[in-house]
Amino acid sequence: MKNKRKICIIVNSRANYGRIKTVLLALQSHPEINLQLVVGASAVLQRFGDIREIIENDGLSITNIVYSVIEGENPTTMAKSTGLAIIELSTIFENLQPDVVLTVADRYETLATAVAASYMNIPLAHTQGGEVTGSIDESVRHAITKLAHIHFPSTKLAKNNLIRLGEDPATIYMTGCPAMDIAANTDLSIDADFFKRYKGVGPDIDPNKPYLVVLQHPVTTEFGKGFDQIKETIKAVSSINMQVVWLWPNIDAGSDDVSKGIRIFREREKPKYIHFYKNFSPEDFIKLIANCLCQIGNSSSAIREGAFLGVPAVNIGTRQNGRECGKNVIHVDYKNEEIQNAIKIQISHGKYERSDIFGRGNTGKLIAEILATSKLKIQKKLHF
Amino acid sequence: MKNKRKICIIVNSRANYGRIKTVLLALQSHPEINLQLVVGASAVLQRFGDIREIIENDGLSITNIVYSVIEGENPTTMAKSTGLAIIELSTIFENLQPDVVLTVADRYETLATAVAASYMNIPLAHTQGGEVTGSIDESVRHAITKLAHIHFPSTKLAKNNLIRLGEDPATIYMTGCPAMDIAANTDLSIDADFFKRYKGVGPDIDPNKPYLVVLQHPVTTEFGKGFDQIKETIKAVSSINMQVVWLWPNIDAGSDDVSKGIRIFREREKPKYIHFYKNFSPEDFIKLIANCLCQIGNSSSAIREGAFLGVPAVNIGTRQNGRECGKNVIHVDYKNEEIQNAIKIQISHGKYERSDIFGRGNTGKLIAEILATSKLKIQKKLHF
Amino acid sequence: MKNKRKICIIVNSRANYGRIKTVLLALQSHPEINLQLVVGASAVLQRFGDIREIIENDGLSITNIVYSVIEGENPTTMAKSTGLAIIELSTIFENLQPDVVLTVADRYETLATAVAASYMNIPLAHTQGGEVTGSIDESVRHAITKLAHIHFPSTKLAKNNLIRLGEDPATIYMTGCPAMDIAANTDLSIDADFFKRYKGVGPDIDPNKPYLVVLQHPVTTEFGKGFDQIKETIKAVSSINMQVVWLWPNIDAGSDDVSKGIRIFREREKPKYIHFYKNFSPEDFIKLIANCLCQIGNSSSAIREGAFLGVPAVNIGTRQNGRECGKNVIHVDYKNEEIQNAIKIQISHGKYERSDIFGRGNTGKLIAEILATSKLKIQKKLHF
Amino acid sequence: MKNKRKICIIVNSRANYGRIKTVLLALQSHPEINLQLVVGASAVLQRFGDIREIIENDGLSITNIVYSVIEGENPTTMAKSTGLAIIELSTIFENLQPDVVLTVADRYETLATAVAASYMNIPLAHTQGGEVTGSIDESVRHAITKLAHIHFPSTKLAKNNLIRLGEDPATIYMTGCPAMDIAANTDLSIDADFFKRYKGVGPDIDPNKPYLVVLQHPVTTEFGKGFDQIKETIKAVSSINMQVVWLWPNIDAGSDDVSKGIRIFREREKPKYIHFYKNFSPEDFIKLIANCLCQIGNSSSAIREGAFLGVPAVNIGTRQNGRECGKNVIHVDYKNEEIQNAIKIQISHGKYERSDIFGRGNTGKLIAEILATSKLKIQKKLHF
Repeated sequence: MKNKRKICIIVNSRANYGRIKTVLLALQSHPEINLQLVVGASAVLQRFGDIREIIENDGLSITNIVYSVIEGENPTTMAKSTGLAIIELSTIFENLQPDVVLTVADRYETLATAVAASYMNIPLAHTQGGEVTGSIDESVRHAITKLAHIHFPSTKLAKNNLIRLGEDPATIYMTGCPAMDIAANTDLSIDADFFKRYKGVGPDIDPNKPYLVVLQHPVTTEFGKGFDQIKETIKAVSSINMQVVWLWPNIDAGSDDVSKGIRIFREREKPKYIHFYKNFSPEDFIKLIANCLCQIGNSSSAIREGAFLGVPAVNIGTRQNGRECGKNVIHVDYKNEEIQNAIKIQISHGKYERSDIFGRGNTGKLIAEILATSKLKIQKKLHF
Repeated sequence: MKNKRKICIIVNSRANYGRIKTVLLALQSHPEINLQLVVGASAVLQRFGDIREIIENDGLSITNIVYSVIEGENPTTMAKSTGLAIIELSTIFENLQPDVVLTVADRYETLATAVAASYMNIPLAHTQGGEVTGSIDESVRHAITKLAHIHFPSTKLAKNNLIRLGEDPATIYMTGCPAMDIAANTDLSIDADFFKRYKGVGPDIDPNKPYLVVLQHPVTTEFGKGFDQIKETIKAVSSINMQVVWLWPNIDAGSDDVSKGIRIFREREKPKYIHFYKNFSPEDFIKLIANCLCQIGNSSSAIREGAFLGVPAVNIGTRQNGRECGKNVIHVDYKNEEIQNAIKIQISHGKYERSDIFGRGNTGKLIAEILATSKLKIQKKLHF
Repeated sequence: MKNKRKICIIVNSRANYGRIKTVLLALQSHPEINLQLVVGASAVLQRFGDIREIIENDGLSITNIVYSVIEGENPTTMAKSTGLAIIELSTIFENLQPDVVLTVADRYETLATAVAASYMNIPLAHTQGGEVTGSIDESVRHAITKLAHIHFPSTKLAKNNLIRLGEDPATIYMTGCPAMDIAANTDLSIDADFFKRYKGVGPDIDPNKPYLVVLQHPVTTEFGKGFDQIKETIKAVSSINMQVVWLWPNIDAGSDDVSKGIRIFREREKPKYIHFYKNFSPEDFIKLIANCLCQIGNSSSAIREGAFLGVPAVNIGTRQNGRECGKNVIHVDYKNEEIQNAIKIQISHGKYERSDIFGRGNTGKLIAEILATSKLKIQKKLHF
Repeated sequence: MKNKRKICIIVNSRANYGRIKTVLLALQSHPEINLQLVVGASAVLQRFGDIREIIENDGLSITNIVYSVIEGENPTTMAKSTGLAIIELSTIFENLQPDVVLTVADRYETLATAVAASYMNIPLAHTQGGEVTGSIDESVRHAITKLAHIHFPSTKLAKNNLIRLGEDPATIYMTGCPAMDIAANTDLSIDADFFKRYKGVGPDIDPNKPYLVVLQHPVTTEFGKGFDQIKETIKAVSSINMQVVWLWPNIDAGSDDVSKGIRIFREREKPKYIHFYKNFSPEDFIKLIANCLCQIGNSSSAIREGAFLGVPAVNIGTRQNGRECGKNVIHVDYKNEEIQNAIKIQISHGKYERSDIFGRGNTGKLIAEILATSKLKIQKKLHF
């Protein structure tokens, strides 16, 4: 009897999970595959919304958990956490002996997965390679590409970038982004209890009234400026007289500064129209943004899922610099007036048409099938 | 008064040191520079020839040492050692606060330096980027390139590769390889006591008689095959009736297998003409290979310094696959007969003409000057 | 010229600092001593009140900082953080080469200091050995005693316990606790701006009106019960109609549960009389408790400094089980009614007489002098 | 259905294994127990004799392996390896969720097991507590005792020491040492191929002729003196005209010095009568020493198993200082003449009578039964 191929996937954050969930489900139900699911980093931390329950409610079994975040939320601990994750993941790989490891996107700790797997001669698959942005993610993403053996870019442009970066075209599969699968297959309607299912802090959000969504992460390469940056967003959002669903930032260096800005604002102003949340399930996140009047901040979801759903979006600052996007996004600087104006324009514009540059909703199964059957080669070579 | 720019360089192995020594000396004597020298990994281990004494004898001060090698010499511990080095180096950078960090070449643990520095928003300089080889080094080198902010390629072809990889040409300085500085400036003559200054094991080498040099490292991406590979080299070298200076392999995964092959051979055959050494100073290494009849194995020194010195060389296997080289090299497979034949051809050919593809001997000062004065920018962007 | 003795002290938390500050000051001004001050763990984290500014305002220079907390605040990460601290501290000791290392008290991460120093053959000094409590601290404290070479117990009973534990009496110096030095030498009066100098959250505290102080940490050996335990304290304190200064718990496993309890209470009740603080300077902490009507919770400060200052205290639960204490403490279970009753009794009793069981206020200089001159021996031996 | 109790045991070295093997076998065949066997540290390293094959040949399944040795063999890396082992073991415990963890004896890295388990509120069992020796082991052993919840001392005196150290007598089980089980139940005869089954280096040992056994480890608290110390032993042993079975030292700090002494001696003298081995199976080790004329060095096996088997032994230096022993041992200093004389006295004396101070051969089953059924309590308290 043939052994099943063992595919190990590392989920490190709430964002990671939404971007890989349909791949996980497709692999778990694939007859030729043995799925190994490792959950670590901020995905197991209360402070960032421990997502283990969400994962298990989706019917997935967690093989291993790992605590790998060294506290500090600064560039030093970002590096150290990556080092610790390499140590931890290599022991886990040593004991699980996967045939392929997949790492998702470009957050700083995903490089840990890439180093552990590639150094251990385990073929490394990578999603979202070839895209262009700002922040340290830009460096991390391309570094992972140079360590990876199979690429699943989300867009044609990204695929072309991978080829220009010297990757062997035979190892590049333009599958689209698995997050679009959820956008394509979720009933977008919101029921009356939608917001009550998530705790968070602040006054209740009425799903029948219009609301904005804000999600602004720190920019690691602008560390130290996050506090001033978020103040501009706060001023702009405060000036719009509307309900706001505000998501706490991720764990990148500078997260503390952003959170501090939000916390001081909360404490002083006790805003009557803003509710702060840590987390939504991937489907509920899709519903959340699909029904908002405008998404504000610098999350890639405004650009990726936003394009597919046609969500009017205001993208602030450099974090998404250079990222391919649809027509739904207005780019502005960290300036109150620019942000305000853009929000108003987007509200009055309303929904945009669907764009499928990031995929059409069939990515999970595509990737699973390729992982199940593709030939695997370890030795890389610059392919010019 | 202007603060001096703090430049931190990490030396992780004997090979590292020879490849960066003239940069270190130039920086130490530069009036605008404060040199921070960190010595770690195999460079502080007896088993691989602790080089701290050699460094201090060269008049350099060591700022910090760090033990970062997790024992096992397999792919798992190679990954883990890299993780540990990231943890250690980020604490060191946190306390030393360097303005620039420089990482040398492409050994697996040099990626640790690159991750720590780039994640901490410290501009990262890199030597030997853009070259092409086999082994995990191929992946590591290009991944470091994608994290680095200043590049010091050794050859024109390497420079072009960096540009094709999307690096900003304004950040690429074609300086040549600092190892050529030593090759260019060392008196190549060997005195009678040359070999007596180094211990090692085995019968004495007579510097007045012809000798071969062997240096064969494991290939990490062919882990598990090192024992068989080295046996072919042993057979071939044994068949030539000549003195042999044999250097122990480096610490890469598979080192144990190579060493075991050598050790079993030593124990069984007690070869009367082979002396095993751990280490030479950079200058003595240059003398050593400049005066041998043929250098055998898969060390890049046969290709780099060898080209400059015109040393006849036999390069075995895949480790240097695709590396640019001069006319002094014959490439063969891991096969006794092929190796034997090539050695014989090279012995009868004798010295080759100097090739300066890897530099002309002025690299150290060039790099030091650029590090002292170049503008430093943190945020990278794919430059196509 | 004789070299100065290098004494390295590790400060890991706000509580650590108050308990060793006068030793640090005495060492820094001692002509025969070179003080090395390492600040790490929760002492460099915003979330727990980064105390570096307080330390520097006291005129002390920080030699090294180290991020060693692995986030999670559970028993697993408590162990992992200790492992990481050992790795970090041994590199620091390797580079600082101290002649003596001193570790403070019994928090979980102090064992890291003890392991690193004792394994590295560096004489280890320890304060607060020989005392008895609950929580993991009880195990940690005695384990450190078995690794330590010089002991500075705080009480006669503790000294006797150390002798019974098989420590050589010649290595035990009954010096009292350095925290009493601050209690003895601080002007206890509170000015009008006292509370305004610290941010925190909640309504202003009026220093002219009576107030309570609450400080309740998790009990690691009762992990999982912290949420229920803190609810009882909240109920009891809420029932007393009085201003409350509430300090956030430390970083021990279970801290999340305690904080969550407090946070939910804050969010729901928006209490008008409670202000939450992260941190006070050691002197201000002394003033704070010296002027309160009653200190509530399970902090050792209620027992140690509280005894000296005669502060009426209610000690809740098992954390201080078996700790020697003065007459100022009433012990109660995790029960609303018991806590309420005890608070009322203490308020009506008012201040207690000074007890000097934990020292008389001259400890810092005593310890510094002993560290400067004592003979140091590495090899330990059970002394029965 | 009742869940089986999960017992996790960590084996870190060849010596560890012999001291716990019969417990492992008894647990594996116990109907109420689920055995989790973790093999790490030097037990998975070629250089110290990877014992995984021996373990599996004994019919035991390995649950997890872990690489935790940071190379350097000095006090700094001894500390760092312990830190790394804590990090690794806590992740392993987090994923295996054992009900009890058992740590063996007193090597430096066994403290890692003790810290990880006790901090994680997992009841910790410990063998060999309460004994007295030199080296860092003396500190480590008693520190583990203070963290442990169940004690399995080997001797009555050790049991009494545990009580005097303040351990609760109800948690102390005087079971003897499991190593005696092997001594009691192994057929002590040696066949003609005995020595041929183990490789090692040096001339063949003839099992029909008399031989000596040498096993001398570094003393960590005398780090830096190992080279001089081993030279005395080499001189003494060389002066006796007899076959010698010499075992390489363990991985303690200073191992390099001892090995270097042996290696230089081997290289210079090419001794015709000494064979060097890394490792024997527990049973073969018993046969080996049971049939030698005299065991020389500072291994505890000469004292423990040696007492039971009546092996004449010469114990050199401070490593076993104060350890309880039978009549079979002569203690000498690190001095050629003293060692020589003692060897001669022992050879002429011949075998000693059996002493059962360290157990009678029934320990494995005893410990297994207690682990299967004993009540487990987490919170410790000094018991005076």
